[in-house]
Amino acid sequence: MTTTPLDLILAPESIAVLGANNNPVKMGSVQMLNLLHSGFAGQVLPVHPREKTVCGRKAYPGVSDLPFAPDLVMMVIPPAGVAEMMDAFGRLGTRHAVIVSAGFKETGVDGAVLESELLAVAEKYGMRFLGPNCMGVINSHHPMNLSAGCMLDPPGHLGIATQSGTYTAQVPAWMHQRGIRISKSISIGNEADIDLVDCLEYLGQDSQTRAIGLYIECIRRADRFLEVARRVSRHKPIVAQYVGGTESGARSGASHTGAMAGPDYIYDGLFAQAGVIRVNTIEEVFRTGHTLAVQPPARGRRIAVLTNSGGPGTAMASTLDARGMTVPELPGPVRRRLEALLPGYASSKNPVDLTFHTDMTHLVEDFPRILLEADGIDGLLIHGIIDTGWAEMAYPLFRSLLDVTLEDFRAMLTVNLLPLIEMARQSGKPVLVSSFFGREDQALCTFQEAGIPCFDSPEKAAAAMADLYRNHCIRTRAVDGAVSEMPVPEAAREIMAGIGADGADEFTAKALIQAYGISTCNERRVHGMDAAVAAAADLGYPVAVKGCAPRIAHKSEHGLVHLNLADGDQVRDACRAIDRVIPGCPVLVCEMLRGDRELMAGMTRPDGFGPCILFGLGGIFTEAFRDVSVRLAPFGPIEASAMIRSIRSHRLLNDFRGRPAADMEILADLLVRLGNLACHFPQIREIDLNPIILCDGYPRVADALLVM
Amino acid sequence: MTTTPLDLILAPESIAVLGANNNPVKMGSVQMLNLLHSGFAGQVLPVHPREKTVCGRKAYPGVSDLPFAPDLVMMVIPPAGVAEMMDAFGRLGTRHAVIVSAGFKETGVDGAVLESELLAVAEKYGMRFLGPNCMGVINSHHPMNLSAGCMLDPPGHLGIATQSGTYTAQVPAWMHQRGIRISKSISIGNEADIDLVDCLEYLGQDSQTRAIGLYIECIRRADRFLEVARRVSRHKPIVAQYVGGTESGARSGASHTGAMAGPDYIYDGLFAQAGVIRVNTIEEVFRTGHTLAVQPPARGRRIAVLTNSGGPGTAMASTLDARGMTVPELPGPVRRRLEALLPGYASSKNPVDLTFHTDMTHLVEDFPRILLEADGIDGLLIHGIIDTGWAEMAYPLFRSLLDVTLEDFRAMLTVNLLPLIEMARQSGKPVLVSSFFGREDQALCTFQEAGIPCFDSPEKAAAAMADLYRNHCIRTRAVDGAVSEMPVPEAAREIMAGIGADGADEFTAKALIQAYGISTCNERRVHGMDAAVAAAADLGYPVAVKGCAPRIAHKSEHGLVHLNLADGDQVRDACRAIDRVIPGCPVLVCEMLRGDRELMAGMTRPDGFGPCILFGLGGIFTEAFRDVSVRLAPFGPIEASAMIRSIRSHRLLNDFRGRPAADMEILADLLVRLGNLACHFPQIREIDLNPIILCDGYPRVADALLVM
Repeated sequence: MTTTPLDLILAPESIAVLGANNNPVKMGSVQMLNLLHSGFAGQVLPVHPREKTVCGRKAYPGVSDLPFAPDLVMMVIPPAGVAEMMDAFGRLGTRHAVIVSAGFKETGVDGAVLESELLAVAEKYGMRFLGPNCMGVINSHHPMNLSAGCMLDPPGHLGIATQSGTYTAQVPAWMHQRGIRISKSISIGNEADIDLVDCLEYLGQDSQTRAIGLYIECIRRADRFLEVARRVSRHKPIVAQYVGGTESGARSGASHTGAMAGPDYIYDGLFAQAGVIRVNTIEEVFRTGHTLAVQPPARGRRIAVLTNSGGPGTAMASTLDARGMTVPELPGPVRRRLEALLPGYASSKNPVDLTFHTDMTHLVEDFPRILLEADGIDGLLIHGIIDTGWAEMAYPLFRSLLDVTLEDFRAMLTVNLLPLIEMARQSGKPVLVSSFFGREDQALCTFQEAGIPCFDSPEKAAAAMADLYRNHCIRTRAVDGAVSEMPVPEAAREIMAGIGADGADEFTAKALIQAYGISTCNERRVHGMDAAVAAAADLGYPVAVKGCAPRIAHKSEHGLVHLNLADGDQVRDACRAIDRVIPGCPVLVCEMLRGDRELMAGMTRPDGFGPCILFGLGGIFTEAFRDVSVRLAPFGPIEASAMIRSIRSHRLLNDFRGRPAADMEILADLLVRLGNLACHFPQIREIDLNPIILCDGYPRVADALLVM
Repeated sequence: MTTTPLDLILAPESIAVLGANNNPVKMGSVQMLNLLHSGFAGQVLPVHPREKTVCGRKAYPGVSDLPFAPDLVMMVIPPAGVAEMMDAFGRLGTRHAVIVSAGFKETGVDGAVLESELLAVAEKYGMRFLGPNCMGVINSHHPMNLSAGCMLDPPGHLGIATQSGTYTAQVPAWMHQRGIRISKSISIGNEADIDLVDCLEYLGQDSQTRAIGLYIECIRRADRFLEVARRVSRHKPIVAQYVGGTESGARSGASHTGAMAGPDYIYDGLFAQAGVIRVNTIEEVFRTGHTLAVQPPARGRRIAVLTNSGGPGTAMASTLDARGMTVPELPGPVRRRLEALLPGYASSKNPVDLTFHTDMTHLVEDFPRILLEADGIDGLLIHGIIDTGWAEMAYPLFRSLLDVTLEDFRAMLTVNLLPLIEMARQSGKPVLVSSFFGREDQALCTFQEAGIPCFDSPEKAAAAMADLYRNHCIRTRAVDGAVSEMPVPEAAREIMAGIGADGADEFTAKALIQAYGISTCNERRVHGMDAAVAAAADLGYPVAVKGCAPRIAHKSEHGLVHLNLADGDQVRDACRAIDRVIPGCPVLVCEMLRGDRELMAGMTRPDGFGPCILFGLGGIFTEAFRDVSVRLAPFGPIEASAMIRSIRSHRLLNDFRGRPAADMEILADLLVRLGNLACHFPQIREIDLNPIILCDGYPRVADALLVM
């Protein structure tokens, strides 16, 4: 546990507010009113040059008039005045700020200047701050709402950190409808000081937060994010949406928070490595995050589906299957217990379908008990429990036959869910519910109060169950021990020292990776035809002959690659052809590798990232399939194996129609070594090992390219 | 326009009801009460052996006591009595029925017997019926509700046909919350008589229905579905969820409606061919279907995004990109018009982000006008319009500063949306909205009334916009003219006649496809080594030599395939090796095809389907990638081209690093011819042409297998 600036920002004893007045449609006023109505127990000190009171509280004309230095200041003032006010509070002794004001880096050069001035003032006083261009924070437990949105619900356990203030301020009604409750919500804004990683670290150690939801347009410190998220995700689930990976997404993000986003597939790799569950919609950030916060993990894939209507049951089963879960047939004894209670048309197979009934007893008590007690069931999905929602809708019909008040009718149909809730809790297995009714239905409200999430469609409940299992897998996955970087090989140091301004040719690139213990084809770099023929004889035919000079990409297209040469004459012809393209070019004479599958590995350094290692199919398949997995270096062999398995076409690496399986240990080792190489030499911008040919299952590099 | 039995079932003048009484929690009573409350203008005639009145209407003790033959009878009685009652109504002269009763085929053998008895009675009288095991129908225009769910909303234009009654009966409150309105909803049940295809045909020609939503567990008449859907989707969008394609989904569906489902990828092909938009959740069936029913198609990919908060704007842009749409930067003149109105921190790039404001004028009027008028914009997405929902939430805060009633406060904040609604209509471009508020917000309700769908997350609105474009593409796509089947080639007839009980060997299989004009490698089938060597000399080295007999699959694994043989000695060795595995086996001596990419084509006949043609990558990639597209035969060259383009790895067929592009015309022609072959000879169960080798872009079949 380390102390972070967010500890105080989320739980101050006193707050100064700049930018509130008595006009209630002004943003600052709205935020101050929310603070006052949130149950905040500390002191609120508005600063205003003219007003005596602001929102009913005594106002102070200037910062120097404040009776003491408040723990926190919130500013909702024009951007030009922010740095000056920071300075005034710095002098006063305040060390934390939430800067809502917009008009900084996100608007262009002038704003960026203002932002760096602000940062300089903060550094002068050792002040830490959120924003600018943020929408405040909410703490539901130490109640405090600095956002423009209202707090409608009791405290919960989902912690939100978001690069869009909307997902702090605009969602309370949305969350209320869905029974989603938060512990904290942090709008991060431009991240001039405190950033997403700080928020993640804070939420990771916050005891009220049991799951974390992130909305991300850009991660500025990817290495540190990885380090923190990997640690946190071992004990607390993290769900993230990343939207900066497409062209328009990146452009939009840039004008929103001034951030430069990175390619989508890099984030896929980062999240996989960090144990972050990636989702594609803000709905999933909240819904899945909330589910993970309130329900235990599913300890296995085997889910029971209980319903009174076939369609939702089938849709749940289908969704579970599609997400790698199973809906196993139930063991005989379990089926017999169910069948003793089942009506005639119902099915005791899994999904257990009671068929349509107005009597809810089976659905809420007898059947859940049997299914939760069953061995070999790791979680339970239920669709179809309704009570007052239906009562309200149906009352106008029933009134003609039943002489009851609506209230009595509601009471007649109210279902006692307490046994089910208690059963679920005691079983230690997750229970999720779906219903086509909303909070007009008492049953749904009761579930939500009890921490059993209710989804508005069967597919969403099933998908959330799969995420509960995914979380279990993340918690229990094998991880590399402290990744001990290998020392820089002496040979590698020498090779790197010898690379001139032109960069490295293929021979040098291969020598470098050989120095890291990566296997390549045998080869010689020679000048002239006679030397080439001698080298070929030495290596044994057939050979390949390639032009070998720095800065040649796409050698094949330029006629610089000649494969499968069978004798000296062919070697001579190849040398002549190369000489016509680049006169005097040295040539590389290489052993022809005989293999059956081509792979690739590479390295790139996207903006904001350290070295990222890529793995995928090689040769013509690299571009055609775009089937690549990524990890941030350095990493160990366990991570490398996960990386290899995560390409879509990983089946190709298996023992396949008589072809031996890829040696996974060697392949993983190759990626680990490549990662080390990338870490050792930051001056290498890109590496491309393509193809890597599987020779009897053993990977050997046939071509290598370094970009310096 | 043809008359279908559903015309009368959805719009009868008189209905007899069996199974209702005066106990309002009985299913039949609920359905009768719903009918009475739905505004049904015709006569309702309950039949009950003892009650004088049922739900307030005069009851008749028996069928023969009815004063006339009603247009329709609805039965909600135990299954054992259904056939007898059908007979009684048949005698009376009634010709249409809705059979809600369950306990038929879906419960097993006994139920299947009951179902066939029912069908026999119906056939005797020429009666047509829905069900059994259905949940009734709803017609919102000729108002009539035969379901167990209430009708809450005015008539709409989405027609639903569902193999789960839940999606007729359990969703009214859910639809009401989301502003989704239906024209008709048909619960199809077990499809003993009327099936999904009948419903599709009916909805396709129903003038009140502007889009169709289908929930599917199984299509029993795939050929006819294709024919109808292909016709309907040219003028009316069809959205479908299919859930039977996974193991658990299929099992669940079987015990739900007694249907046997088919593999998922076959349905992918069927839907693509039919112009059906496939979705994965029931939410999308309703939401997307409703959007397609009320909004014009997007005539291009270029979408403007307008918002007052960066996160939703970025998420919309990102979602659009990911679905093949674009969020183009706006032309200079458009940007200048926007910038003249924009506040300081806002962005005139696309997404246009006004940043947070309590004043809604820009968002609802000025900016939409400019964007809808802009050339090069095909649709508009807006996030952030709210009024009374926010007023209600914020009123408790504001009360302390403003002396207004809640009503006045709501009125103050109510936004005039009429200009926007009118603008949208006149532009002919689709406009979709997202909001984090529900129907507590007047703005949202106004949009919904006006047929502008409101989504509860930005990603959903963006996805729906992409579907509006997809619909445009389906409507305007090129299609083959009437697919003229080719005549059966005389040679093919002879080859097929010659295939004995053992089936066909590779030589015969290739001869058959050659008879259809499909190119294969040159080859000879011979007996003995000497003949093999002579054949090899004739074909030219290198050659392949394979064992050639019927019923050999996986020849490679059995040592029956010898490739790249360079001379007579190697051919002799190969013949000896084959002879050791299968003594006396004839051998096939084949030209070695030299190519750079391997493809496959095949044919299979899943349950309920005619011949389905498969296309994908060949060789080891077929299994490793499972990247296959499917079409139902017969089809023409345009469909075949679409089929080729729809594999994930279609880029591999392009001109690629110096390798010539595949000849798409010849490749499409190959698939068309294979489709014809499959249609001509139903006795062929499977065909596997794998690999098909691209030789200088020209596809030639290297191996062929027929399964009879």
